Amino acid sequence: MECIEQANQRAVDTMLAGDPVLVDVIPAVDAIPELAEDKLILHAGPPIEWERMCGPMQGAIAGIAVFEGWAQNLNDAMSQAAAGAFNFQPNHHYNAVGPMTGMTTRSVPVMVALNRSSGNSAYCAINEGLGKVMRFGGNDESVLKRLHWLKDSLAPLMSDALKLSGGINLKNIVARGLTMGDEMHQRNVACSGLLLRELSPYMAAVSTSKELLTGSLKFMGGNDQFFLNVGMAAGKAIMDPARNIEHSTIVTAMSRNGTDFGIRVSGLGDTWFTAPVEMPEGLYFPGYSEDDANPDMGDSTIVETIGLGGFAMGASPAVAGFVGAGAASDAAIFTKDMSEICYSQNPEWTIPAMDYIGVPTGIDIRRVVEIGVTPTINTGIAHKKPGIGQVGAGVVRAPMQCFTDALHAFADQEGVS
Amino acid sequence: MECIEQANQRAVDTMLAGDPVLVDVIPAVDAIPELAEDKLILHAGPPIEWERMCGPMQGAIAGIAVFEGWAQNLNDAMSQAAAGAFNFQPNHHYNAVGPMTGMTTRSVPVMVALNRSSGNSAYCAINEGLGKVMRFGGNDESVLKRLHWLKDSLAPLMSDALKLSGGINLKNIVARGLTMGDEMHQRNVACSGLLLRELSPYMAAVSTSKELLTGSLKFMGGNDQFFLNVGMAAGKAIMDPARNIEHSTIVTAMSRNGTDFGIRVSGLGDTWFTAPVEMPEGLYFPGYSEDDANPDMGDSTIVETIGLGGFAMGASPAVAGFVGAGAASDAAIFTKDMSEICYSQNPEWTIPAMDYIGVPTGIDIRRVVEIGVTPTINTGIAHKKPGIGQVGAGVVRAPMQCFTDALHAFADQEGVS
Repeated sequence: MECIEQANQRAVDTMLAGDPVLVDVIPAVDAIPELAEDKLILHAGPPIEWERMCGPMQGAIAGIAVFEGWAQNLNDAMSQAAAGAFNFQPNHHYNAVGPMTGMTTRSVPVMVALNRSSGNSAYCAINEGLGKVMRFGGNDESVLKRLHWLKDSLAPLMSDALKLSGGINLKNIVARGLTMGDEMHQRNVACSGLLLRELSPYMAAVSTSKELLTGSLKFMGGNDQFFLNVGMAAGKAIMDPARNIEHSTIVTAMSRNGTDFGIRVSGLGDTWFTAPVEMPEGLYFPGYSEDDANPDMGDSTIVETIGLGGFAMGASPAVAGFVGAGAASDAAIFTKDMSEICYSQNPEWTIPAMDYIGVPTGIDIRRVVEIGVTPTINTGIAHKKPGIGQVGAGVVRAPMQCFTDALHAFADQEGVS
Repeated sequence: MECIEQANQRAVDTMLAGDPVLVDVIPAVDAIPELAEDKLILHAGPPIEWERMCGPMQGAIAGIAVFEGWAQNLNDAMSQAAAGAFNFQPNHHYNAVGPMTGMTTRSVPVMVALNRSSGNSAYCAINEGLGKVMRFGGNDESVLKRLHWLKDSLAPLMSDALKLSGGINLKNIVARGLTMGDEMHQRNVACSGLLLRELSPYMAAVSTSKELLTGSLKFMGGNDQFFLNVGMAAGKAIMDPARNIEHSTIVTAMSRNGTDFGIRVSGLGDTWFTAPVEMPEGLYFPGYSEDDANPDMGDSTIVETIGLGGFAMGASPAVAGFVGAGAASDAAIFTKDMSEICYSQNPEWTIPAMDYIGVPTGIDIRRVVEIGVTPTINTGIAHKKPGIGQVGAGVVRAPMQCFTDALHAFADQEGVS
């Protein structure tokens, strides 16, 4: 037991020492050289083959294949995918994360979060905004046009601005965001604004086109969830150095592909422990209901893995209503519950309304199983058909089976079963 | 009594209908033609003569006289002021407000908040940032240099951008800010960011100088209190149409000049009811103590008059610690107390953490006197010597005497005393 405590302390210390800085935006292939080979498509969640993918995931894959020029049109892309023309791998296997469908291919621009503490980097695509977008399975011309604009226009401008800035400290932005009602999963308006405040002078300084600068400021300023993907890259950069710590029972990743929910545990290497993903319970946009909903999806649960999202609900009473989690004044209950399954709290990420307690940090699979409480996740809800988009937001629980399976495997490995 | 209730309902309805929009930044003389005549200097608070002014107010007057070219240097300005060379009047008499010392003279650029509901406009200078600034009595070369930059560089750029934007809806920004931890007096970081998000694309579109645009975005983005002065202009624009409603006991202005605290009451016209201003109780920046503090000062209490600041403390647990008002989790108590002395609540400005109650709206002098609770104000603390600046932040109470005097006058006027 003592070596488990020490290992978990080391894992949590590594997390708390994490110092993610947004340093660049680059083509994914420059971040992940493997993307140059084959027709590699990285997706959210644990590994999954084409046949078992949900509708939005298949829709996004069709769209990204057209975007990369690997298919003539969406039908062609679907046929090729079914015929095995593409190589599917999880983002998580390549230092990357992506929200919802989480498409990452060679030409997609990715934001680079450098963890100055450990020296590793993590990558995430730029948030596309609301409405018809690829992360919710959108794949029509408007979606591809936006992706081309992100690639050809916004990404190079952000890259130049970030280089001139010397990098944007993301730990500080998250800390401030927690005092401003963000939980960094379904609510990112404060952090999006704080990032724009820091970056916009550098964007102005490097810009060579008034039209591009104006459009970029409007795009970033008009997207309340712009920071979600930045926070995700930060989360991945924070968690990766906490992987593979022998004897540790701390969760290093939680993720879902729309079909399966998967977790990874530090002391169990890179094995995924999966179970069927659950349906979010939440509120639907007008005209939609749970009949339209796709099961939970995306790598965005990396934010819960570092103590934000559903774990930081107490910082974000306004999100409680948005995700249908009850009264705003009850938001703190979620954070208190999550503290029960975590090894520690984060002294730098605190919640004023809860008299500055730190967000729950380091999910311990032993506590999850012992107490019988699984992680709470604040999530967007995608339409189950490809190409439609977000239809609501809600709360979903990680399936207990992932944790019991992982704990059994841990017991086997430690020789205590 | 019935006609009082009706009058108060009308006053509060007028407040709630207020629709302030930031439409322009113009030289004060273009907003207030009287500034062209004499050497008129508008200051914060109720009327006051030179001899009774506090140190920071005198310091600011010396500075602004040099800025306007009415004096060779600060000593010359002080001598001229003492000799009666300047005409001193309250901002409030000219549709204007100003934080702390509140200097408004002909060349100072003022932001224009147009109340689209009543058609009136109100004016406030641009926030200078922290450190040595004129609103805290700062008057050295660095202070005057910044004022010149605001006048010659930032103001014209903001003006052009605002014109292109068609105006920025301030009611919406305040509503969002309340869900993001701002109370709009001592905490404006969220609203400052929201304003920049909306305005920056237009600034980029109209800018003709990369250096100016970069510097302006950096200045605005680096000033967490930038929105304070915008909110003050909005507050004045909201309150002015609620003035002079016969039989109404609703407070239409609260303000202090560092010597006196003054209030105006709707049914009592433009009479000021004054009393000696109190000392804030709060927290001091390192190296300073209450021995250094100037008594409370500024027109910024217009934000409490419209239900924000100390009245909206429940929205801003993080500010409670900053102003030394006790535990963050107790912030809601201030809002509940202020609800007791107000006629209504604002259904559009709500506090998520308090399950979306509206901010207390319409201070009723009868309730203040009856319950014995005076308005709570979140305030910055100035050094008592001119030229030093802010030394802390705290909470101060409006003096009860203003309210009892006003209530006596009201009773006399209504013939019920």
